[in-house]
Amino acid sequence: MIHAYQIAKHGEAFTETNLEMEALGAHDVDIEVAYCGVCHSDVSMKNNEWGITQYPFIGGHEVAGTVKAVGEQVKHVKVGQHVGLGWHSDYCQQCEPCHSGDHNLCGAAQGTIIGRHGGFAQVVRAAASAVVALPSGMDLSLAGPLFCGGITVFNPLVQFDIKPTDKVAVIGIGGLGHMALQFCRAWGCHVTAFTSSEAKAQEAYTLGAHDVINSTLPAELAKATNTFDLIISTVNVELDWNAYLATLKPKGRLHFVGATLEPLNVGVFNLLGGQKSISSSPVGSPATIKQMLEFAVQHDIKPQIDVFPFSQINQAFAHMEKGDARYRVVLEADWK
Amino acid sequence: MIHAYQIAKHGEAFTETNLEMEALGAHDVDIEVAYCGVCHSDVSMKNNEWGITQYPFIGGHEVAGTVKAVGEQVKHVKVGQHVGLGWHSDYCQQCEPCHSGDHNLCGAAQGTIIGRHGGFAQVVRAAASAVVALPSGMDLSLAGPLFCGGITVFNPLVQFDIKPTDKVAVIGIGGLGHMALQFCRAWGCHVTAFTSSEAKAQEAYTLGAHDVINSTLPAELAKATNTFDLIISTVNVELDWNAYLATLKPKGRLHFVGATLEPLNVGVFNLLGGQKSISSSPVGSPATIKQMLEFAVQHDIKPQIDVFPFSQINQAFAHMEKGDARYRVVLEADWK
Repeated sequence: MIHAYQIAKHGEAFTETNLEMEALGAHDVDIEVAYCGVCHSDVSMKNNEWGITQYPFIGGHEVAGTVKAVGEQVKHVKVGQHVGLGWHSDYCQQCEPCHSGDHNLCGAAQGTIIGRHGGFAQVVRAAASAVVALPSGMDLSLAGPLFCGGITVFNPLVQFDIKPTDKVAVIGIGGLGHMALQFCRAWGCHVTAFTSSEAKAQEAYTLGAHDVINSTLPAELAKATNTFDLIISTVNVELDWNAYLATLKPKGRLHFVGATLEPLNVGVFNLLGGQKSISSSPVGSPATIKQMLEFAVQHDIKPQIDVFPFSQINQAFAHMEKGDARYRVVLEADWK
Repeated sequence: MIHAYQIAKHGEAFTETNLEMEALGAHDVDIEVAYCGVCHSDVSMKNNEWGITQYPFIGGHEVAGTVKAVGEQVKHVKVGQHVGLGWHSDYCQQCEPCHSGDHNLCGAAQGTIIGRHGGFAQVVRAAASAVVALPSGMDLSLAGPLFCGGITVFNPLVQFDIKPTDKVAVIGIGGLGHMALQFCRAWGCHVTAFTSSEAKAQEAYTLGAHDVINSTLPAELAKATNTFDLIISTVNVELDWNAYLATLKPKGRLHFVGATLEPLNVGVFNLLGGQKSISSSPVGSPATIKQMLEFAVQHDIKPQIDVFPFSQINQAFAHMEKGDARYRVVLEADWK
């Protein structure tokens, strides 16, 4: 029997509950949760915004903890080892993306908080292939947010072969953006932050930006015409995407890791002349997560977190939903 | 004094005229036009659809001919040599795209039919850098359409590092699409043609398609879910792009070489899960044109053309504008 926090019915608050764990499978890993980040998709799932939530719902997919038990076939982590778990808790291992190392694009991948209980619990279970060992030197309290928010903004640098000589911009300085700035800076790139918040401009510099552009001023955007090789948009609001496309260099890419449900309203002619691309991607593969963790330790990249004990999970969500998080909320185990 | 066919005023037909040529510049090449293809952008320019046409207008940017004269600095082609000229007649040679071999993305590139007279003339002039020698074995009458239509569909295979193991689809079997099928087949790819015309299905197979999908049947599209690495859309009509995105494999790309002016109406969530891209590109660089010409000779890739003498230029345009071309119209010099 383990403790967990669940939403019993749509619209209710989190309440503590107890769960019975089934027998451990041969390829399973049980993680004793020390910390679990709170991601915007936990909010979306809690509120059933995507229509796929099953209640009672136990979220949490930015897990950092200690291996509690491993199935008999598990070789790569040992009981007592520090590990993390992100959006995916299992992969099919049989499809073309899995065979190509793109497990995060597996159409049959299991979501950590979809149809099973996530990291808002004493113990969370996942297939060994989805559990990644933390490198030595990584603070457990800081690891969780890297497993979803961090990998989501790190992965495009790998996928699109971004070079240190490239000029990269990040739209939005928040849970994702504040990590994107750090990764892009450590990657060796020239980094520009687009923000609508004057208050965040100074923080953007501290996080690694060489330049900050006030995105509420069209004239400032216009000055950046033909500047960027890659723009990573982390925001969930609709902006004037054609204006951002104009700030890309030829062959540049506007990449979305945040998105609205509305169509993009972008014309082909804004892509054509400069051979520009628009794209989007979800999290990253276990191999890329491992690369990211080592890169984060090497370059001292850390999410900035607001820590709440698990017993204050409802306050933690309220803090985040109000937009007060600077920049990522992390829950800390305080089970009695 | 040379002969040419011009549109004197917006809305008028082509009429014969005489032009005075200025003195040849040190880096210029004069080409005696043997053949000139007619491209849809000649129609758009003739009708000032893009608002940039200067009248009198002399179109033609799919030129195949013989070098008539070269400036003193021109080294790479000689008088009497067979050459071709496409959409661009000069490049700035100073910008990042020019320095990187992406001359077709040069923001200051000169259009062959913008602000100067094109290939609907006895002689057309261009900067040496934009003139590409034809490889031996290339039929002059077939070379012209490769210089705009051909390079436009060949270039994406180079730009996006398409591999022979990739599965490629082409939307639209017309002036561009019929060449795209041949190039993709010769590239070693598995090739699928999307067409709304039952009549063109058999021709698509002949041109190189392994499969043909009737794009008017949503159920047929649905069967192709998760199939293609690259889709090249050559059409100028709005289709259900989200349905086509679903036929892409993870990491697949929907690439537009034809386009409407309307926004694409594509949602980010249709790109996100499979890390898909949308993009567009214009023609290709001189280096890529040279590769394409050699590849076309090697693989016996030929545009299918309807030939009209220059003196029937108005009939030629009417034939094309009616949609009767199978598949590319070429004008042949018959100056008196």
